[in-house]
Amino acid sequence: MLTQQEREISLKLRDLLLTAKRTISIAESCTGGYISHLITAISGSSRYFKGSVVAYSNEIKEKILGVDSALIEQHGAVSNKVVRSMVIGIKKLFRSDYAIAISGIAGPTGGTQDKVVGTVWFAYYINNNILTEKHIFKGDRLSIIQQAAQKSISIFIEYIKNLN
Amino acid sequence: MLTQQEREISLKLRDLLLTAKRTISIAESCTGGYISHLITAISGSSRYFKGSVVAYSNEIKEKILGVDSALIEQHGAVSNKVVRSMVIGIKKLFRSDYAIAISGIAGPTGGTQDKVVGTVWFAYYINNNILTEKHIFKGDRLSIIQQAAQKSISIFIEYIKNLN
Repeated sequence: MLTQQEREISLKLRDLLLTAKRTISIAESCTGGYISHLITAISGSSRYFKGSVVAYSNEIKEKILGVDSALIEQHGAVSNKVVRSMVIGIKKLFRSDYAIAISGIAGPTGGTQDKVVGTVWFAYYINNNILTEKHIFKGDRLSIIQQAAQKSISIFIEYIKNLN
Repeated sequence: MLTQQEREISLKLRDLLLTAKRTISIAESCTGGYISHLITAISGSSRYFKGSVVAYSNEIKEKILGVDSALIEQHGAVSNKVVRSMVIGIKKLFRSDYAIAISGIAGPTGGTQDKVVGTVWFAYYINNNILTEKHIFKGDRLSIIQQAAQKSISIFIEYIKNLN
């Protein structure tokens, strides 16, 4: 079951995309399909959601989304450069109007001193601009996944609102 | 939050794939990312889950998963033939050992007399065999998504157990 807040944000996204007559696609890593679930929990979402790739391995990020392996080697999968590359890849592959990409460390393992558990990079493809943000979430694995998924949509809605 | 039953089945899948040292990929349609979420809610899932494609439009089923548009025209997206084609597509694309594909009608709209809301086709790619099943679930949209997602994993586990 979606929380009240999750449902509200997903409905806001629906209203925004239906009004704008725009489609969206998502490249998910750490959220593992949960953003897609929030979107598709809403009836009628097939009118604006083209789909997503859950790229849970570097191989998939490279092979399907076209991320350069050198970027992953140099900066790590959880980085500004990789999430930028992921959002370009998914936008091109799915031919959607907008795109979101996300890469982070949901934990409990995988954190380092530089990149603690809960570190999440977000990228947005909006009107030929790419916007990125980093946020750090606290909590257990599921809580980080849920917070990051909600945040990915709420940041997108704010960006679009600020355009108008 | 996952239900107790969801968590248990996802842990069973983990044990099975880690023991067998095999990877899996998923092509989701009606479940919209929820199967991927059930799998990735478990820490360490990146060791056996390569990722997934949420193919929420026919265009994506055709373009990314390689489903022949003629199959969709003749049989509909929710059909034995299309779900077979989806599982072949995701297995090839993600180069996983096993693959699951799912296509159904989560409702509340989209049902017909022949294919009622809750109709879901499952396909499994296991050791060069493709196995398909159809099930019909009752309930609201989210309940159908959740039942179908759980069922997709439990059928897979049964198939694998019967091999041994």
